[in-house]
Amino acid sequence: MPDTHHTARQGSATETPTRDLAQWVAEVPSTDFTDRPRRWAKHAILDWFGVTLAGATDPLVGILAGDALDAGEGGNARLVGRKEKVTPTIAAMINGAASHALDYDDVNKRLHGHPTVPVVPAILALAEQKGLAGRAVVDAFIVGYETECLIGEMMGMNHYDHGWHATATVGTFGAAAGCARLLGLDAGKSAMALGIAATQAAGLKSMFGTMCKPLHAGKSAMNGLMAARWAARGFTSRSDALECAQGFGTTQSTEFHGLPVRPDSAAPFAVEENLFKYHAACYLTHSSIEAIRELKQHHEFTADQVTRVRTLVDAGHRKVCDIPEPETGLQVKFSIRHCIAMALSGIDTGDREIYTDATAARPDLMALRRKVEVEDKVHDSRHAAEIVIDLADGRSLVQFFDVGVPADDLDAQEQRLIAKFHRLADPILGADKAKRIKDLVLGLDDAKDVGDLMATAG
Amino acid sequence: MPDTHHTARQGSATETPTRDLAQWVAEVPSTDFTDRPRRWAKHAILDWFGVTLAGATDPLVGILAGDALDAGEGGNARLVGRKEKVTPTIAAMINGAASHALDYDDVNKRLHGHPTVPVVPAILALAEQKGLAGRAVVDAFIVGYETECLIGEMMGMNHYDHGWHATATVGTFGAAAGCARLLGLDAGKSAMALGIAATQAAGLKSMFGTMCKPLHAGKSAMNGLMAARWAARGFTSRSDALECAQGFGTTQSTEFHGLPVRPDSAAPFAVEENLFKYHAACYLTHSSIEAIRELKQHHEFTADQVTRVRTLVDAGHRKVCDIPEPETGLQVKFSIRHCIAMALSGIDTGDREIYTDATAARPDLMALRRKVEVEDKVHDSRHAAEIVIDLADGRSLVQFFDVGVPADDLDAQEQRLIAKFHRLADPILGADKAKRIKDLVLGLDDAKDVGDLMATAG
Repeated sequence: MPDTHHTARQGSATETPTRDLAQWVAEVPSTDFTDRPRRWAKHAILDWFGVTLAGATDPLVGILAGDALDAGEGGNARLVGRKEKVTPTIAAMINGAASHALDYDDVNKRLHGHPTVPVVPAILALAEQKGLAGRAVVDAFIVGYETECLIGEMMGMNHYDHGWHATATVGTFGAAAGCARLLGLDAGKSAMALGIAATQAAGLKSMFGTMCKPLHAGKSAMNGLMAARWAARGFTSRSDALECAQGFGTTQSTEFHGLPVRPDSAAPFAVEENLFKYHAACYLTHSSIEAIRELKQHHEFTADQVTRVRTLVDAGHRKVCDIPEPETGLQVKFSIRHCIAMALSGIDTGDREIYTDATAARPDLMALRRKVEVEDKVHDSRHAAEIVIDLADGRSLVQFFDVGVPADDLDAQEQRLIAKFHRLADPILGADKAKRIKDLVLGLDDAKDVGDLMATAG
Repeated sequence: MPDTHHTARQGSATETPTRDLAQWVAEVPSTDFTDRPRRWAKHAILDWFGVTLAGATDPLVGILAGDALDAGEGGNARLVGRKEKVTPTIAAMINGAASHALDYDDVNKRLHGHPTVPVVPAILALAEQKGLAGRAVVDAFIVGYETECLIGEMMGMNHYDHGWHATATVGTFGAAAGCARLLGLDAGKSAMALGIAATQAAGLKSMFGTMCKPLHAGKSAMNGLMAARWAARGFTSRSDALECAQGFGTTQSTEFHGLPVRPDSAAPFAVEENLFKYHAACYLTHSSIEAIRELKQHHEFTADQVTRVRTLVDAGHRKVCDIPEPETGLQVKFSIRHCIAMALSGIDTGDREIYTDATAARPDLMALRRKVEVEDKVHDSRHAAEIVIDLADGRSLVQFFDVGVPADDLDAQEQRLIAKFHRLADPILGADKAKRIKDLVLGLDDAKDVGDLMATAG
């Protein structure tokens, strides 16, 4: 299925990718966004509210909000999960930082990053300020998302490998495109918005592990929002910012190549390959956990029966998440062995509160994790895992899982996302308010504006 | 003299340039900034007010200010040369964009860019908000300026050649360092400020010729200001953002090398090599104009007597400013021949109002420019020019000038800068207010705060 997605998206190169993209941003009819991409979009927005509400309690968000109020940046725009209200520009930044604070937000492989966190904070802040309709917000999200993924693909893997945090850099274009759409800019002004975004795009991968990583998402949202607003007023940039000599493309990738926008208009939109995180641990543990989840659904066995577990994964996993004897909650998140032990024991790995020092020290989990072997295997996807479980009764269970494959069953996805959302949102807002947000987001296409939604969340 | 400057500044490489720099930013005693660097700093700040007042009427500034007010970003911070008041963060941005709008602001060769426009808007906005003393503002400017030039040198020419607008990228560090100093951050927090600056640093040279170029200066000021404010509150980044793997250095230059801060503490500060622009034309016309100014001071001759003029300049000048028959005011700025004709005729090339279509079409200037030959010659400095003027009476006058050499005579520099300032500021504010600003800036070391200065300018 991911191959189908990919083939559909290939096309001959274009010499004018910025203008092509700007024209599409401005002119693609809303009616092209059928129920299926709209439903995917609402899933992503619902998930965004969950991770943002939970992330809003992070100290980094308090720093940004406190600074904004001291700097006179109070206003009417809501901060999700917080009491303060600030200007729309600053709200886009702070909500963006909050939504990436837990690193529990969604992923797209074409972007090589997190697609939702740069776009949603920008378009919500704009829609809230201008009183824009929910349907336009959904449209703008699909547009922004498509823009990021297309540019991510144009930049190639070299951009990320060279040290750029694509969520930050490419994300700026996503926010600008979404806001340009929401403001109804024409193709010429949309190209200006992309150009103004290009020259503000920044963010270093070497900042991972500091508060700057979540800040990147927020700054992208803010910079993209400003780019679109300024373009609307006639601020000038280049109309070929991606492909011009020493433009965004060649300054920041050795592989840049112009690509057409959706050469196959019947192909799925980029948002339809969004990958959600259901476990509050390193993404490279997810396929192993999901494979165990599958096995437990189809076979009767308990953790006591397990004599040996092998997980066959890309060699790169060892570098990132193979802490054999984790001692802290944070280390658990990067211990594929401990995560497997948790999954086998029926612990909810989607609960971010479970990643504690006490969990790391639980004797039954420690015994179980020592039965796990991590082995190298080349799969088609570097996120995939093959799990082999030997049981005391002689059975050997085998399951492959690749979290890099978008979901097929949207009903099932929705149920899982609602469960994740409530787990994150209920402790912050209470179950009633959380349910109201869930209903408002899933009904966003019919909302007169986003005022009620933002008031409930902020 | 520039060679002396350079030698003094060399030193053995350091493995920890970010931390060294942060420590210097935090701990260099104010008493190290003696009268001479302080005087240079005030010259740069005076020149900044002149170009900012004149630039504040540019349409791009109106767009930014109008957008800010519509987005609820009104506040108490002054916009130089304008009626609107906005938040300090936005003031730093808009004042920074205004100050680079005319491209008439100063230059430093170590930065490969414009040093004052990213720093002054940030520190003034902060000082205005917090009521900080003038002396601290001068200190902060010297610190920010030194930071930019040191990092500019660490990045090497490759950074600029690759497509980065150093005023924008490296300027962000200057603003952050200046604001960190002004906030009294310790070495650890100053390092965080530099790290937060590093991951926001952006700006493409390919945007030259659009409103994005001046925006770069403003965004650098704004981003640097926010970086320092956030660091003050405990926001985290890396303490080795310049030199770490995939840090600012190696992601954006192939020549990055760590350098110590002022290994010779007796050497002049970077601000003491600031280069001011006295002509409202392309910088590469300046040495030719100055050479003629020298000749006119020491020899008696009139434009009528001139039979032939040769200017011997770096081959690169032909690409940038050798429009032989300019037809518009803008083209005049990029016509070394027409600028020479104007200088020979005693026209004030520092008056930005003189660059008109009418000036381009003046018959006497057209006749004179046709007597000018532009020839290639390799000088030590690519900004230098050697002028040879043949006169009807058989005399041949020769003069070399390099605008890349900092001034020796600070009294003379001050007089020229005051004249330039009044030429720019008087039409905007009137002579009385302009004089008051001049007096307040030149007395800045003794000012209780910058409130009076900003109120007079805004």
